[in-house]
Amino acid sequence: MTRDIFIFNPGPAMMPEPVLESTSKAVLNFANTGMSIMEVSHRAKEFDALLEDTEKRLHKIMGIPDTYKVLFLQGGATLQFSMVPINLLPAGKVADYIDTGYFASRAIKEAKLIGKVNVAASTKEINYTRLPAPNEIKLTKDAAYCHITSNNTIYGTQWQTFPETGNVPLIADMSSDILSRKVDVSKFGLIYAGAQKNMGPAGVTCVIIRKDLVGKAPANTPSMLDYKPHVENNSSYNTCPVTAIFVVHEVLKWIEDQGGVANIEATNNEKAKLIYNILDSGDYYKGHAEKGSRSKMNITFRLPSEALEEKFASEASKRGLKGLKGHRSVGGIRASMYNAVPLAGAQKLAEFMKEFKKNNS
Amino acid sequence: MTRDIFIFNPGPAMMPEPVLESTSKAVLNFANTGMSIMEVSHRAKEFDALLEDTEKRLHKIMGIPDTYKVLFLQGGATLQFSMVPINLLPAGKVADYIDTGYFASRAIKEAKLIGKVNVAASTKEINYTRLPAPNEIKLTKDAAYCHITSNNTIYGTQWQTFPETGNVPLIADMSSDILSRKVDVSKFGLIYAGAQKNMGPAGVTCVIIRKDLVGKAPANTPSMLDYKPHVENNSSYNTCPVTAIFVVHEVLKWIEDQGGVANIEATNNEKAKLIYNILDSGDYYKGHAEKGSRSKMNITFRLPSEALEEKFASEASKRGLKGLKGHRSVGGIRASMYNAVPLAGAQKLAEFMKEFKKNNS
Repeated sequence: MTRDIFIFNPGPAMMPEPVLESTSKAVLNFANTGMSIMEVSHRAKEFDALLEDTEKRLHKIMGIPDTYKVLFLQGGATLQFSMVPINLLPAGKVADYIDTGYFASRAIKEAKLIGKVNVAASTKEINYTRLPAPNEIKLTKDAAYCHITSNNTIYGTQWQTFPETGNVPLIADMSSDILSRKVDVSKFGLIYAGAQKNMGPAGVTCVIIRKDLVGKAPANTPSMLDYKPHVENNSSYNTCPVTAIFVVHEVLKWIEDQGGVANIEATNNEKAKLIYNILDSGDYYKGHAEKGSRSKMNITFRLPSEALEEKFASEASKRGLKGLKGHRSVGGIRASMYNAVPLAGAQKLAEFMKEFKKNNS
Repeated sequence: MTRDIFIFNPGPAMMPEPVLESTSKAVLNFANTGMSIMEVSHRAKEFDALLEDTEKRLHKIMGIPDTYKVLFLQGGATLQFSMVPINLLPAGKVADYIDTGYFASRAIKEAKLIGKVNVAASTKEINYTRLPAPNEIKLTKDAAYCHITSNNTIYGTQWQTFPETGNVPLIADMSSDILSRKVDVSKFGLIYAGAQKNMGPAGVTCVIIRKDLVGKAPANTPSMLDYKPHVENNSSYNTCPVTAIFVVHEVLKWIEDQGGVANIEATNNEKAKLIYNILDSGDYYKGHAEKGSRSKMNITFRLPSEALEEKFASEASKRGLKGLKGHRSVGGIRASMYNAVPLAGAQKLAEFMKEFKKNNS
């Protein structure tokens, strides 16, 4: 299997070919059990071993300290928008949220249903073209936690330096850039990520929680929304998404085969540079995000007209460059270049951009 | 692909071979998109078409009236244990629950966190060997709803005639027998089912909700726990479990290829009869469930000793009869014979049971 397409989908997104191949095989026969990965019990020793190995690999790849527990849950980042405040925002406390885009604002909306929220900064008024500057962020002393969205898929912005919150736990929705770069996990109280961008398929959510933050949910919390039973039962409090977890395992193996996150990050930097260099070489392509806030994962830009944008996405698709249409909030083009988009994909896109500009100026 | 094993797992469980084959292929290339089903956007037109077709097929196969909406969610039956009372048990009302086993009692526990619960009947004291008789069920007049578990996987009991609740909505956890027999959906207010027994892989939950019951959640309900946004966004309020929904689609196609639920039910009856006949032919094998409450899905029985039970499961496994060990609450053997276990599987198990008895009496 060698494909001639590159998928720039914002998520679910392109996956490494070895992952597709091993998953396709495991759907027929998992670990020589004679059973499909879809038929294996979530309590079977073969799956237990896989789950344990998945957790161990993630610890190793991300350098997660032993003071943290890794969970694989369901419900996506959207359910985490509620689980975080339900577990960690007690009555009488305030949680700080930094509003940097669509998903950040949805997290805020859900948190407000649970407790008291301080929007410590927002760049909504400038259509989220950048992240707030450090001096614009008004943190609450003794906040329950501070919540950020590490990468803003729709607007193409990404925190390069995370805000300093001192003793206040920093919580990050890393759905769209987990495993794309080195991160010091010890700076965070909790990290969560829907898998469907850099980590696996839709249908599994990774939560990395500092153990001292487990067990803080109020007594009447639905058990599925309390981190504690998930921690105590090692992600198998209820039937876990077995197949999706298998795929995460395969993605982690692939990351190791690439030499780990450091190598992945270097390639991601190279990929992003190729496209940003074109944006910076003239004014045919206009980036949405300000330079200092640019994302390495999602590059958002406009062309001189909507008609040209339509033509760009359509011609690109014919060349095998798929999924480039931007989100309606920003318009134009969005090139999502998660880990599995190879350097060759970015190179082909860069060449296409140059050619398109030449032919359509 | 023709396998020489039969999987009697309680769930995740055996799946039809054509489903495994088409899923294995779609993991490499979905609907000629050149993309894996794991890479396709949940907003792509190809997936939209699949989702719509899945819903339509389920409506047709189960005879679901147009006054109901079908949802494909995450979180399993366990999350439904909370979503049902959050949405449908307002303050000042009482919900009736019938306690017929482990999962029924977990549903009760979660509901009690939300509102007032009346356990209308329970057979816990007799280790759930049967369902309550009609005259043992003490329903509340004007209850918010009445909740049952249609099939009790661990104990091997199954409602053959559902309780009459008049105008009170009947709500059923059908995780372990949905699509195994004809059911008059119009008798229910809401049906839910984790897919991983008769419907698909772990990681997707089907909810069939009467439309007038949508929109009743309190204002401060986390949006993911409110049926309304899921209904309004046609199961794509957030990123849905795309691959798992694809598999459900393939299972529904397979059911149609078998001639629909009526044919499936006839085969299920035949399969169950083969095993129950052996239980009834002597006292070597002792059924856990009383005759009148027997499940067609999960047949639970004991052997003369635990040592023989161990030997039975182990020898059966060597013959390709997998997953027969019973749950610790009942002990002994559990043969879960969901739709995908063919008649030949039940026949092979029946022959093995006869032979084992002869050799070990």
